[in-house]
Amino acid sequence: MIETEISRAIIEEYNRKLTGHLENDVVIVGAGPAGLTAGYYLAKAGIKTALIERKLSVGGGIWGGAAGFNVVVTQDDEIPKEFGMTSKKQKGLYIFDSIEFASALTYQAKKAGLEIFNLTEAEDVIIKSDAVEGVVVNHSAITLAKLHVDPFCIASKFLIDSTGHPAEVVHMLRKRNPEFLPKGIQEGFMDVTKAEAGVVEQTGEIFPGLYIAGMVVCAVYGLPRMGPIFGGMLESGKKVAQMIIDKI
Amino acid sequence: MIETEISRAIIEEYNRKLTGHLENDVVIVGAGPAGLTAGYYLAKAGIKTALIERKLSVGGGIWGGAAGFNVVVTQDDEIPKEFGMTSKKQKGLYIFDSIEFASALTYQAKKAGLEIFNLTEAEDVIIKSDAVEGVVVNHSAITLAKLHVDPFCIASKFLIDSTGHPAEVVHMLRKRNPEFLPKGIQEGFMDVTKAEAGVVEQTGEIFPGLYIAGMVVCAVYGLPRMGPIFGGMLESGKKVAQMIIDKI
Amino acid sequence: MIETEISRAIIEEYNRKLTGHLENDVVIVGAGPAGLTAGYYLAKAGIKTALIERKLSVGGGIWGGAAGFNVVVTQDDEIPKEFGMTSKKQKGLYIFDSIEFASALTYQAKKAGLEIFNLTEAEDVIIKSDAVEGVVVNHSAITLAKLHVDPFCIASKFLIDSTGHPAEVVHMLRKRNPEFLPKGIQEGFMDVTKAEAGVVEQTGEIFPGLYIAGMVVCAVYGLPRMGPIFGGMLESGKKVAQMIIDKI
Amino acid sequence: MIETEISRAIIEEYNRKLTGHLENDVVIVGAGPAGLTAGYYLAKAGIKTALIERKLSVGGGIWGGAAGFNVVVTQDDEIPKEFGMTSKKQKGLYIFDSIEFASALTYQAKKAGLEIFNLTEAEDVIIKSDAVEGVVVNHSAITLAKLHVDPFCIASKFLIDSTGHPAEVVHMLRKRNPEFLPKGIQEGFMDVTKAEAGVVEQTGEIFPGLYIAGMVVCAVYGLPRMGPIFGGMLESGKKVAQMIIDKI
Amino acid sequence: MIETEISRAIIEEYNRKLTGHLENDVVIVGAGPAGLTAGYYLAKAGIKTALIERKLSVGGGIWGGAAGFNVVVTQDDEIPKEFGMTSKKQKGLYIFDSIEFASALTYQAKKAGLEIFNLTEAEDVIIKSDAVEGVVVNHSAITLAKLHVDPFCIASKFLIDSTGHPAEVVHMLRKRNPEFLPKGIQEGFMDVTKAEAGVVEQTGEIFPGLYIAGMVVCAVYGLPRMGPIFGGMLESGKKVAQMIIDKI
Amino acid sequence: MIETEISRAIIEEYNRKLTGHLENDVVIVGAGPAGLTAGYYLAKAGIKTALIERKLSVGGGIWGGAAGFNVVVTQDDEIPKEFGMTSKKQKGLYIFDSIEFASALTYQAKKAGLEIFNLTEAEDVIIKSDAVEGVVVNHSAITLAKLHVDPFCIASKFLIDSTGHPAEVVHMLRKRNPEFLPKGIQEGFMDVTKAEAGVVEQTGEIFPGLYIAGMVVCAVYGLPRMGPIFGGMLESGKKVAQMIIDKI
Amino acid sequence: MIETEISRAIIEEYNRKLTGHLENDVVIVGAGPAGLTAGYYLAKAGIKTALIERKLSVGGGIWGGAAGFNVVVTQDDEIPKEFGMTSKKQKGLYIFDSIEFASALTYQAKKAGLEIFNLTEAEDVIIKSDAVEGVVVNHSAITLAKLHVDPFCIASKFLIDSTGHPAEVVHMLRKRNPEFLPKGIQEGFMDVTKAEAGVVEQTGEIFPGLYIAGMVVCAVYGLPRMGPIFGGMLESGKKVAQMIIDKI
Amino acid sequence: MIETEISRAIIEEYNRKLTGHLENDVVIVGAGPAGLTAGYYLAKAGIKTALIERKLSVGGGIWGGAAGFNVVVTQDDEIPKEFGMTSKKQKGLYIFDSIEFASALTYQAKKAGLEIFNLTEAEDVIIKSDAVEGVVVNHSAITLAKLHVDPFCIASKFLIDSTGHPAEVVHMLRKRNPEFLPKGIQEGFMDVTKAEAGVVEQTGEIFPGLYIAGMVVCAVYGLPRMGPIFGGMLESGKKVAQMIIDKI
Repeated sequence: MIETEISRAIIEEYNRKLTGHLENDVVIVGAGPAGLTAGYYLAKAGIKTALIERKLSVGGGIWGGAAGFNVVVTQDDEIPKEFGMTSKKQKGLYIFDSIEFASALTYQAKKAGLEIFNLTEAEDVIIKSDAVEGVVVNHSAITLAKLHVDPFCIASKFLIDSTGHPAEVVHMLRKRNPEFLPKGIQEGFMDVTKAEAGVVEQTGEIFPGLYIAGMVVCAVYGLPRMGPIFGGMLESGKKVAQMIIDKI
Repeated sequence: MIETEISRAIIEEYNRKLTGHLENDVVIVGAGPAGLTAGYYLAKAGIKTALIERKLSVGGGIWGGAAGFNVVVTQDDEIPKEFGMTSKKQKGLYIFDSIEFASALTYQAKKAGLEIFNLTEAEDVIIKSDAVEGVVVNHSAITLAKLHVDPFCIASKFLIDSTGHPAEVVHMLRKRNPEFLPKGIQEGFMDVTKAEAGVVEQTGEIFPGLYIAGMVVCAVYGLPRMGPIFGGMLESGKKVAQMIIDKI
Repeated sequence: MIETEISRAIIEEYNRKLTGHLENDVVIVGAGPAGLTAGYYLAKAGIKTALIERKLSVGGGIWGGAAGFNVVVTQDDEIPKEFGMTSKKQKGLYIFDSIEFASALTYQAKKAGLEIFNLTEAEDVIIKSDAVEGVVVNHSAITLAKLHVDPFCIASKFLIDSTGHPAEVVHMLRKRNPEFLPKGIQEGFMDVTKAEAGVVEQTGEIFPGLYIAGMVVCAVYGLPRMGPIFGGMLESGKKVAQMIIDKI
Repeated sequence: MIETEISRAIIEEYNRKLTGHLENDVVIVGAGPAGLTAGYYLAKAGIKTALIERKLSVGGGIWGGAAGFNVVVTQDDEIPKEFGMTSKKQKGLYIFDSIEFASALTYQAKKAGLEIFNLTEAEDVIIKSDAVEGVVVNHSAITLAKLHVDPFCIASKFLIDSTGHPAEVVHMLRKRNPEFLPKGIQEGFMDVTKAEAGVVEQTGEIFPGLYIAGMVVCAVYGLPRMGPIFGGMLESGKKVAQMIIDKI
Repeated sequence: MIETEISRAIIEEYNRKLTGHLENDVVIVGAGPAGLTAGYYLAKAGIKTALIERKLSVGGGIWGGAAGFNVVVTQDDEIPKEFGMTSKKQKGLYIFDSIEFASALTYQAKKAGLEIFNLTEAEDVIIKSDAVEGVVVNHSAITLAKLHVDPFCIASKFLIDSTGHPAEVVHMLRKRNPEFLPKGIQEGFMDVTKAEAGVVEQTGEIFPGLYIAGMVVCAVYGLPRMGPIFGGMLESGKKVAQMIIDKI
Repeated sequence: MIETEISRAIIEEYNRKLTGHLENDVVIVGAGPAGLTAGYYLAKAGIKTALIERKLSVGGGIWGGAAGFNVVVTQDDEIPKEFGMTSKKQKGLYIFDSIEFASALTYQAKKAGLEIFNLTEAEDVIIKSDAVEGVVVNHSAITLAKLHVDPFCIASKFLIDSTGHPAEVVHMLRKRNPEFLPKGIQEGFMDVTKAEAGVVEQTGEIFPGLYIAGMVVCAVYGLPRMGPIFGGMLESGKKVAQMIIDKI
Repeated sequence: MIETEISRAIIEEYNRKLTGHLENDVVIVGAGPAGLTAGYYLAKAGIKTALIERKLSVGGGIWGGAAGFNVVVTQDDEIPKEFGMTSKKQKGLYIFDSIEFASALTYQAKKAGLEIFNLTEAEDVIIKSDAVEGVVVNHSAITLAKLHVDPFCIASKFLIDSTGHPAEVVHMLRKRNPEFLPKGIQEGFMDVTKAEAGVVEQTGEIFPGLYIAGMVVCAVYGLPRMGPIFGGMLESGKKVAQMIIDKI
Repeated sequence: MIETEISRAIIEEYNRKLTGHLENDVVIVGAGPAGLTAGYYLAKAGIKTALIERKLSVGGGIWGGAAGFNVVVTQDDEIPKEFGMTSKKQKGLYIFDSIEFASALTYQAKKAGLEIFNLTEAEDVIIKSDAVEGVVVNHSAITLAKLHVDPFCIASKFLIDSTGHPAEVVHMLRKRNPEFLPKGIQEGFMDVTKAEAGVVEQTGEIFPGLYIAGMVVCAVYGLPRMGPIFGGMLESGKKVAQMIIDKI
């Protein structure tokens, strides 16, 4: 029956992808602008990478622009050009349609070979001998449905927390050791100029094997928040990818 | 202040897009596979088109594949190739990553010039002199928040209902005239072969100015349902675009 | 890493079970007393059978006895003895602990070789050439989480609806053809004597390939309801299994 | 089409109001009695002022009087007279219909030229060089609908927190620096006499550019709470307006 | 104690208002644009009138303009001028700030002497000898809290249903006699021109003592819907008031 | 009209009761066993007393007995006899039907002249010159409906907190001064013997004018919890009444 | 341990009450004014009667009076006097405190020997040989918690439906045979005079063994509704009790 | 009537079980793998034991395997063999169907004579003279339905907390004395090897009469978490049983 043949093709392909990524060089948690950019550059460099995203769709906070006005801006267009995005330049700002922005990041990351597991939630991090060794994951539908079901594990040499404001992976460490993050985890008052510079500068490793990128950087270091400007997110994602590529 | 400059750039760009699309040649309701494909071909042909989508993200039911196994299939790869998608061929089926599939449709539609209004909900259809003249829309956040706020109107010469199983635009007509749809609106038992053929064949105009594409066709004509196979959706979207292009 | 080895073992075993049951002789929907009993006898007879259950746990309405008094009764103990259950006899009634009753049915069905897919929901039935050919299923966590995700398909020569009062599979046929069930689908007033006899007597095929067992029989034929007496459920499950074994 | 002409007129007028108020002399957060009174006097003095209110309607806690008995009182009628309200005098109290009270404040503030943005929520405050420079806002429908969408920014030289008991703007400072408010933020036991006097006396600037008025003053300085007596609210609103007018 | 003096003043004033309006000439249900306008003209003519509104605030659907763009329009400014509203004229449309519009209607109605009971819900209509004699009301907080508490009764010679699209009072008749409203209760497709004219023309008495005004007229007669244009609402409110004044 | 005559009789009687109790000798908060007993003895002694209860019905935790087995016990039947309750004696325990127990307390308290305001919620306490002067109350339907509406005030020379485990009035003091209650507010492990004795012994005044009775005593002094035994509750209520009678 | 002795006393007493009432002369469903009155007179006459009530507390709609004004009225005080209630007479109406009214009914019914099972829900009626034989019940906590648990059965020669407006037992018959109730089940417009007379007059048997009393009578015969006047309820309860006593 | 005979048999049997277990040697809280295993060995040794479980079904976190892949593993098969479970051995892991695993534990525990009270919730622990004496329990339907109803008590010489990650009984002690548990109650990062060994090793008594088993051990001692591997759970359950048997 053609219907079961389709089911078989889908289930087997998913199983191949999933078991093929139980061991990884890099796992990225969170498919917003920083995570997708990092994933693109890592995949392009041939690094075995899996990106985990809790929601059905990827793109994080890009889609809605500002307050539903579906437009986003950057102050530089080098990375957007690399992703094939169209922009308008106006008073030093590059203006993008938010839907094109989100889909371009996703499409090019996929074409570069990034494996993305949507509907998948990182529940915890695996740390042995004081270094990251993987993540504990679950199907996010299980969590949304409030079912009491155990997770499974994915191994990874490097882990990137690109979960945005909540800094979810960082918090998994922090709940075991509240002093892990000496600097306040509260973002500062909005300041685009300082935030755009700071988020890129401070992108990097904060625990053996654990890297942070995007808004997580603001949250961890108490940098200013920034609103619907996404240049720093892309650069942070590119930088974290390069740091890991250099290490491998 | 740079922060208000960014806000101004975003608000003015959105206002330009919105007021620029209060009058359209075509309005598409629903950004699933059929709607995005139709939008791509219409925009590529230079037709002034706006696509309205209730959710933050576009892509409809593509993202989750089957039961969260994030893979989709088609029986033909001509349109997927046009959108730059990668597939594996196996026993007559083309197998795609669902995330690549969704983002490729969106990205190429945007590159072709399609204007997409996400977070926007079609509340009603405007019909005068027994022909479609536009749609009544609202911000979907207003609706989700259950606020009692009036909608606004968008004019259009042609309207495509690509809202999937619920056939929302068709129902807007139906609630005024229950006999508008003589054929049962209940989809039939799953049958991929019949559904894939039928959905394309019966794509077309069902009321002056109102076209249906994708799963709406199954719902309206009681065709079989089909599950996570998307070839017919793409062909239906392409066909409805061509029919309107031919008319214009 | 031992953690990923465990994950791999689990995922591969599940994949083997799932792909191994995309084609079946019999699919049973609903793991209450009738469904588990049917599954036990079918598996024991070597018939390739899959039982689909929406919830995490199986056993249906057995666990709570009556109003939370966790005791159930039967009027005969032949089948309970086959399942290794302990009872007390009192005024013609056999009295069982409800937890032992539920776990004995499940344990013996598993030992007999029945494959059970819990957390799996039947969304629809597949009917071609006017006979059952399979079921359309989804992970029930997806449904509980209200995610818009397509289902997949499982083929089966025979289908048993043992979903209890809601008669879910029967309703899948009925919504396409309201006249499919000429007899009222409303259960009658409680009458243990008539219900216990009637439910067994009328267990059987109601559409080519579709069999009904347990409370579905009461619902479909308007038989009396019966409360926490389970003998008829077990006999109905045994009878439906035998009817299918005889046909195969 | 007349329908789109109406839509165009509305959207363009709103856009003109919104972009016209991305830069302000004063932004008031919260359209209760203190905020509306402050807005009235500021607008009357020709100061460029925007009032932001989360709800659809303005008036805050006035509408329901006490426990739904829709009546409010003051101990003085000078400001109510300025707003054209009708009262009854009885044992030293001026008694007003709560609906007339709320609508008079709003109507006269609008006639004086105050711009009010309802359905708009202050998410954060912008502070640079240790002084208020603006507010971060979002459409409150977005927040109510729990959508993950970035905010936009409105610049202002002065900011008035008139959000009532929650003292929302003050809390935005406090969450960054818990010692910002040395005095307990818990209101004291109800005492109308002390509260009515204290709330006016302590109305003023508590951080460069940030002023507090109305119940926020009670919350910040631990003054007594007061219930449905609104004279102090109006005087506090008038005083804060005058302090800012004097500074400008 | 001053606190109980304030409580006493409020409770006694409310009691005076409520017991003073247990018998009325006119009761209006629903404080949207039509209801407030009707109330203004009736009160101005000295007719004893009570307006009942379920919500805390009055103004109905005016506050949010269209989709939260807080602007409304009319095609005529005679009634708005009577209420002291400010408008801009543009291409035949008068453009108003929605907040000024709502507060002006309320403020002037109150100044004219209209008694408004907010937080009060009409549960049913009282009809004896085939004519309206009053309404059955409850505190809407009781209903919102889902408490099982009986209502009380308010007598009235005339009753105006200005509850908008839901036509709530009309439905109270209809549920007893489904044939009471021979014409479809479904609003027609949006058509501003026809709706603005029709709503005024058909405003009037539909059952001895029961009048309809505003969107209720569209709902009852199946007239087109109209969106955020409010001229017809005001004229309908004025007309219904005049019809009742003429009768009295 | 008879219907409005009934409404008028009810509203005026309630208004008389409410305004008649804006000033009291004693206000009791919470109509469980301790509060009803205290109210009975106070009313019987001719003290002007009002009992405030948030729910529609009174009786607190009595109705359900233990786990829904609707039976309660005491170790002494002197007070139950005073209230006209029937009991069975068995192994030193007096056994009562929980419904008779709850209704006897209520009925006799009413017959003794106690005024009870159900559906009324104590929001706060009024304390001036370091002594209780009254309570701040609201209609609990307002609170249940989450409406933003101010409360009103009731004066009282004495206040009894008989709100059970939550010790609500005590917490109103405690949130202003966390050190108000030096002893832990956490109840101890269940111990009927110690709890029954301790709750009566420690019943009394804990702040000028504020008395505690019933389970509040356990909560405040960290006494053991006790379950469905109600003798101590009745004695505590009687004792607190006597202490206040003695003072007056 | 005293704690388990108390538990044992409670559990055994409940078990004695419950098993003692598995067989009854009369079962009353719904403990509002009519049900309690009927129960009082039946118990007083020595008839073995059980009253089933879904909620924790009994009294139905009495507690809240009208709109929370906690007062109820009757036009006659004969039955209230029998229950020991206090009233004020005013313009032909007897005025009662609603809390005294509810507790007096309950207290006297209990003293007369009525057995009341609160937290118990009637799920269905048992009808054999075209006559009522009992009710199917469950713990209402089970139903509230949405647990899938079977009910148990209580036998009764006579059944009184006193469930108020919903007429729950009548609907249990009606859902099996929609033509069971030829007269509309919709209550008529409020009319105290007609309703008070009609509800008593039409109280009686509507199916062999099934009696209706109180508001159920209005619902079944389409009589007018009546609001917070309770004389007819009491008389209906008394009448139905007498009719059954006469039969037995 | 047969229906009431069945009800009587069920209610009396439950009452016999419940009153028969008001006094116990051992009470186990939580019917997951550790609790069921402990219960099996205790019952087999003839110790009077009651197992309390909040949910309808027992088995805890076993049913869903990992992320809904319904498979679990152990590293040893001695105890599984004792329970009659079937496994596959692969790379040092024993692989089980999760449904067989859950039902085998339950079935064999019941056959060994363990009494299980499902739908029963432990609310608190009873501690007198610094040793465990029992538990305070309630029907969990009562708690789920948020009804305010007192619990009852069950005496026990020994108490086993096998409530999994929440360590519920331990927390009942901890909320009275926060220093009761000096070691962090936060589980450590996942580490199967350390966790499997540690959980068994540290199983034991942590307060006179209170034993911990299964995941509670990880929670109390801050051991690593472990995911869907269940060998340690079974061994911990067996060990705690043996420790108590040895003591008795």
